[in-house]
Amino acid sequence: MVVWDEEGFQGPRHEFTVVCPSVLELGFETVRSLKVLSGAWVGFEHAGFQGQHSVLERGDYPGWDAWGGNTAYPAERLTSFRPVACANHRDSRLTIFEQENFLGRKGELNDDYPSLLAMGWDGSEVGSFHVQSGAWVCSQFPGYRGFQYILESDHHSGDYKHFREWGSHAHTFQVQSVRRIQQ
Amino acid sequence: MVVWDEEGFQGPRHEFTVVCPSVLELGFETVRSLKVLSGAWVGFEHAGFQGQHSVLERGDYPGWDAWGGNTAYPAERLTSFRPVACANHRDSRLTIFEQENFLGRKGELNDDYPSLLAMGWDGSEVGSFHVQSGAWVCSQFPGYRGFQYILESDHHSGDYKHFREWGSHAHTFQVQSVRRIQQ
Repeated sequence: MVVWDEEGFQGPRHEFTVVCPSVLELGFETVRSLKVLSGAWVGFEHAGFQGQHSVLERGDYPGWDAWGGNTAYPAERLTSFRPVACANHRDSRLTIFEQENFLGRKGELNDDYPSLLAMGWDGSEVGSFHVQSGAWVCSQFPGYRGFQYILESDHHSGDYKHFREWGSHAHTFQVQSVRRIQQ
Repeated sequence: MVVWDEEGFQGPRHEFTVVCPSVLELGFETVRSLKVLSGAWVGFEHAGFQGQHSVLERGDYPGWDAWGGNTAYPAERLTSFRPVACANHRDSRLTIFEQENFLGRKGELNDDYPSLLAMGWDGSEVGSFHVQSGAWVCSQFPGYRGFQYILESDHHSGDYKHFREWGSHAHTFQVQSVRRIQQ
């Protein structure tokens, strides 16, 4: 991926193909625009993969409004980046559970769902996740809006048993849309 | 769908099943929370289906950040609503064209694409659309972020030949993600 110091792909640029724990070390104060040329990435608000994060798939991101997934608390800057290992789209599998610790009713997903209610899930919450394969992004509200949580088969052994494991900014079980991350 | 006068499903409520050109006529000043119980809807910032709009699929929307698709210019209120006629997911088909007026290279879509670049489309723009069946939402940035445009087979005969026909807030050909609307 390529990052720029200024909006609209202006100013000093830097290209990297592996994990970047802090753009400060590259002489950047922050990243104000970027392009993902291959793969899928996660961008974090703070150095060391801390703070709010955004899934970054292939494409052009001319300013913070392009990656700000959360309208109420958008991450206006990105400081660290890491790649996401995705499975082939057809092979991506995720199990969702009604309650924490993989308890209660469950659902098996292998597609994208902008509305879990519309696919037959009962309620606006998910208690826990098990990622069998692939990488997924789930969102607080329908249509992939609100806080996002990234779920990967190669992190936590694919087990996310409570919202405290979904991400530092997760403070509720509310999840209303889920999709695969595209590489 | 059900709408409330206050955030968090509080205050006066109103339920409707058909088009609603203005919630002002229902005695509401604006809508601050809503639930979509069935179908898919579009909510508009102003009365008479004007201003910014948001696709509303089944689920709970406790506040404006739940429907605000555009981070930079979120619609903090919704005043009019209409249902969207969706095709069966498997039967939804959309053709995208490189240039306006259905010219240039084309691509046939029948799935959801959080990144058009990743599916092989060359560039970050789409010149025109023809909706063969179903209802679609396309977004300015990857991952369904930024301005959204709704494309329907039963509007404009499914033809959207220039960005001026995509919506009143469209002012560029930039489109980087496209998905079907789920009912």
